[in-house]
Amino acid sequence: MAEGKDNSKLELIARCIRPFPDFPSKGINFRDICPIMKNPAALTAVIDLFEKHVLETHPVVDLIVGIDARGFLFGPLLAQRLGVGFVMVRKKGKLPGPTVSVAYTLEYGTAEAEVQEDSVSPGQKVILIDDLLATGGTLFAACELLRKQEAEILGCLVVVALGDLNGADKLKPHTVFSLIQY
Amino acid sequence: MAEGKDNSKLELIARCIRPFPDFPSKGINFRDICPIMKNPAALTAVIDLFEKHVLETHPVVDLIVGIDARGFLFGPLLAQRLGVGFVMVRKKGKLPGPTVSVAYTLEYGTAEAEVQEDSVSPGQKVILIDDLLATGGTLFAACELLRKQEAEILGCLVVVALGDLNGADKLKPHTVFSLIQY
Repeated sequence: MAEGKDNSKLELIARCIRPFPDFPSKGINFRDICPIMKNPAALTAVIDLFEKHVLETHPVVDLIVGIDARGFLFGPLLAQRLGVGFVMVRKKGKLPGPTVSVAYTLEYGTAEAEVQEDSVSPGQKVILIDDLLATGGTLFAACELLRKQEAEILGCLVVVALGDLNGADKLKPHTVFSLIQY
Repeated sequence: MAEGKDNSKLELIARCIRPFPDFPSKGINFRDICPIMKNPAALTAVIDLFEKHVLETHPVVDLIVGIDARGFLFGPLLAQRLGVGFVMVRKKGKLPGPTVSVAYTLEYGTAEAEVQEDSVSPGQKVILIDDLLATGGTLFAACELLRKQEAEILGCLVVVALGDLNGADKLKPHTVFSLIQY
């Protein structure tokens, strides 16, 4: 019964993801999650399924950490459901005050991810969230930031995982829970 | 009684905003809302007060439109409370498919804001949301985008408004509702 409900939630979410071939560059099949955001029932379903997964696997969580910018769409909703705080990982130069940063490689060139130094305390149990897992570069950098802060990383959540890009392998030993896989 | 409750919510929110002088550049006193995000009660208070304002002033809303990136922190929460969809206004090049864009002036140089062409339909009643109102440049560009889409703009919501930068004047005839003013 509960499983049937989860399946219809997943079907609703899947119907709200649109492919855009060759965006933002040739050869990339972009998965657009904007229709999830426009459909309140689909967005509720995403947060329901994330919340259920977290409560089943990690009943004690201190913080949800979201990745700039689409992780900000889902992270605060999940954090509010769980009654915990939300922390941003941002591109370099966006966060004021003392920060910790980590450089990572993109398809072309490099980027830096940052968190505020006082955002996470040693030993805090954190879950990372983003919209999509591709090569895992940004989530990997975010995990490194949190390890620097001596946080305990419980796992990563994404709405969509692209299976052929080995993002989940890159993030090991951390686990990635995804709702929809391509 | 209700007013006393609102005042204690505003006090909690105000305590969670930190000033950072000379960030991101000399002469700018940055108001950091990260501590709101880390405090679940403060974040709930923000959404409570936004929801109350919207229900009192515009009981019928079709969409919440959030500005890249910190508008994404609050917009989906408010949209879920109201049971409506959420639409992103993003920096150019981030949204797939046909888009509408508007150029606007920044302190140094120009930028472009975009929405997906099918994100808003003519006549839809929309409310814009961002974390902070300074000069109003980005919100003004977002309003222009929505006028191009023939949306009916009901108003703008921000957590923090900086009064001395005339952002609210720039946005007239649209109104700006802010929780905290400096």
